Amino acid sequence: MPAIITLTSDFGYEDPFVGIMKGVILSIAPEVTIVDLCHGLPPQDIVAGALALESAVGCFPVGTVHLGVVDPGVGSERAAIAIQTERGFYVGPDNGLFSLALDRDRKIRAIRLTNMEYHAATISSTFHGRDIFAPVAAHLASGVSFESIGDPIEEVTALDSPAAAIDEESIGAAIIHADRYGNLITNLRVEQLDEWLGETGRSDVSIEVGDERPIGLTRTFSDGHVGETVVYIGSGGRLEIGVRNRSAVDRYGRAARITIRRQLGTRIHD
Amino acid sequence: MPAIITLTSDFGYEDPFVGIMKGVILSIAPEVTIVDLCHGLPPQDIVAGALALESAVGCFPVGTVHLGVVDPGVGSERAAIAIQTERGFYVGPDNGLFSLALDRDRKIRAIRLTNMEYHAATISSTFHGRDIFAPVAAHLASGVSFESIGDPIEEVTALDSPAAAIDEESIGAAIIHADRYGNLITNLRVEQLDEWLGETGRSDVSIEVGDERPIGLTRTFSDGHVGETVVYIGSGGRLEIGVRNRSAVDRYGRAARITIRRQLGTRIHD
Amino acid sequence: MPAIITLTSDFGYEDPFVGIMKGVILSIAPEVTIVDLCHGLPPQDIVAGALALESAVGCFPVGTVHLGVVDPGVGSERAAIAIQTERGFYVGPDNGLFSLALDRDRKIRAIRLTNMEYHAATISSTFHGRDIFAPVAAHLASGVSFESIGDPIEEVTALDSPAAAIDEESIGAAIIHADRYGNLITNLRVEQLDEWLGETGRSDVSIEVGDERPIGLTRTFSDGHVGETVVYIGSGGRLEIGVRNRSAVDRYGRAARITIRRQLGTRIHD
Repeated sequence: MPAIITLTSDFGYEDPFVGIMKGVILSIAPEVTIVDLCHGLPPQDIVAGALALESAVGCFPVGTVHLGVVDPGVGSERAAIAIQTERGFYVGPDNGLFSLALDRDRKIRAIRLTNMEYHAATISSTFHGRDIFAPVAAHLASGVSFESIGDPIEEVTALDSPAAAIDEESIGAAIIHADRYGNLITNLRVEQLDEWLGETGRSDVSIEVGDERPIGLTRTFSDGHVGETVVYIGSGGRLEIGVRNRSAVDRYGRAARITIRRQLGTRIHD
Repeated sequence: MPAIITLTSDFGYEDPFVGIMKGVILSIAPEVTIVDLCHGLPPQDIVAGALALESAVGCFPVGTVHLGVVDPGVGSERAAIAIQTERGFYVGPDNGLFSLALDRDRKIRAIRLTNMEYHAATISSTFHGRDIFAPVAAHLASGVSFESIGDPIEEVTALDSPAAAIDEESIGAAIIHADRYGNLITNLRVEQLDEWLGETGRSDVSIEVGDERPIGLTRTFSDGHVGETVVYIGSGGRLEIGVRNRSAVDRYGRAARITIRRQLGTRIHD
Repeated sequence: MPAIITLTSDFGYEDPFVGIMKGVILSIAPEVTIVDLCHGLPPQDIVAGALALESAVGCFPVGTVHLGVVDPGVGSERAAIAIQTERGFYVGPDNGLFSLALDRDRKIRAIRLTNMEYHAATISSTFHGRDIFAPVAAHLASGVSFESIGDPIEEVTALDSPAAAIDEESIGAAIIHADRYGNLITNLRVEQLDEWLGETGRSDVSIEVGDERPIGLTRTFSDGHVGETVVYIGSGGRLEIGVRNRSAVDRYGRAARITIRRQLGTRIHD
């Protein structure tokens, strides 16, 4: 079973940057299987990258190496890191890009990529994907030991994104991303919602989006009428706000607060 | 020779959906070769997906598994199916996505994907590509027997798209797709045209696009002058209407009728 | 170690053209590793394709086959060629697409693809990527001898792009490409600059962009303030002009001349 390296970036598809990283990887690890997760992330949008990785890493075999490059701080003092977890490895900048995935995984240890033996001979100030992350990912996939590629670090930078405010009475959730259809992704994961609900069940919640009157949770996006707001659990496992055949980001913006309360009798539509 | 799975979708390149399907496939079938056919199809455009598959499947080795997800009905009652043909396998929604490819292939049998042993443990209502189609395609590529993955069905849904009206005197063709250059793809395949022409030869046809005066068939798109309408056989094997360095969809719209008549002396340009 | 074929084109991501070429390749060479360099090049922009290949080929293993299709002359008399170099092989149209990569490589020999045994059975006039280049690249990757696929040619078409004018006093450089961020890529390579500088050092140059007052070379794009013009060596190894958080192409256009002079005391910013 060949090792897998996934690639996630905001490099887009007009330039050869992704292909160049693949050339570097295949020069070091010719037998590896490379999988593009997504390269059309909004430029420098670390949260979008973190959400992409969060929704994907659980679908890959144990041992997969996830290389991520959404890196507004390239050339600055931000660290280049690798993280070993129960699921596999993460390689990229220390800017929070991996933190949502790590929340659903179990970190074993993290290192700063200080061993230049595993980097390119010369390091540019603009393309660490090619010069540091790709060679390190390839060496990890080839079986180089994790501890040999750098020095241990205690803490990994967390995503600069607010947590959902959960108390007995209610949950206050915030929008952390809008997808290309204009759906709003929140900082509330389904596991958090279900734990808070306990025996109540998802059919008995009431959700306020901004100042609008409370609505129930729908089973899926397509349950709403055209132009109707729907609140549902997205395929990535988060509470999402959509407007059927319309843009929720146009209707609510990105700053709207979402409040969830228990309310017996608010029936789930389906 | 490793098995091949092709992927065709309207998922775009801003989200990790395609990468997630690949993770699912590689978890089940680590040795498979995955090929992206195209993921930038216009959202929910089943005809565009059917044309992409039609033009591509003949270029792949026998035994290839073609997974397609253009699926406006996900979460509704539309069936999830697989089709075995002389060329290989098709896996996806039963909405006509495979019907143009099937017209040039030979169907052996079709099944509804009812054996949940080959699906994900939990099935979302929004992402059957991940939960049903990817695991089924991977199991097929791994050698699971076709009949074990579901129950036989007699009929597969046909594409909701008109056939060319062919009679002794003329052919009435319709536009079924506009490509990103504004070229108009018709429902007339070159094999149909040549069969109708018989001994006449392609140089002796006269073609009316909308209300314009008849023109001949050109050998290739680039035979026209700038701004001139050209009618030619596209690389996918269909009659196409283009306007050199302009958009045919802007000039004619998508509703224009195309009429082909025999006319000795209408010379092919070349 | 499996052979590698890279693919570079302006085919975009809305159509199955790239996937079709992969099907052709895998039908002939099932064990080959296919790598997409980039398919979102601006349509028919040969210079953009040449720059993509220039920046990428050095990152791939020796023996890699680089297939490139930016081919405004498809269907015309332009030759289809292959070039063998010390690094590997190039396959595509003879229109300058490979010439920047060749400047940094060493050509061994070139041929015109005249042996139709290695082409598709029928050749369309619009899709030589599928009918000629993909099968030839696959046969080369499978070990078919280079000389058997065509007839030797002496000269390969050079890119229609001006060289930097280098004399004792100054270098006159020209803009040959604008990337998607609006940065301007010049025809001056870092090796040319360093050779001209000799012992002077990059910190002692003065650069005029259009009519503006001379500035120094910055270490990286991110060294400038917002709205400030920066001149730096891009990751592809060329002198580039950028405007931090703005578009340099909007400010200067594509016709601005760049003049580099030695000037002691012009300090590099960093």
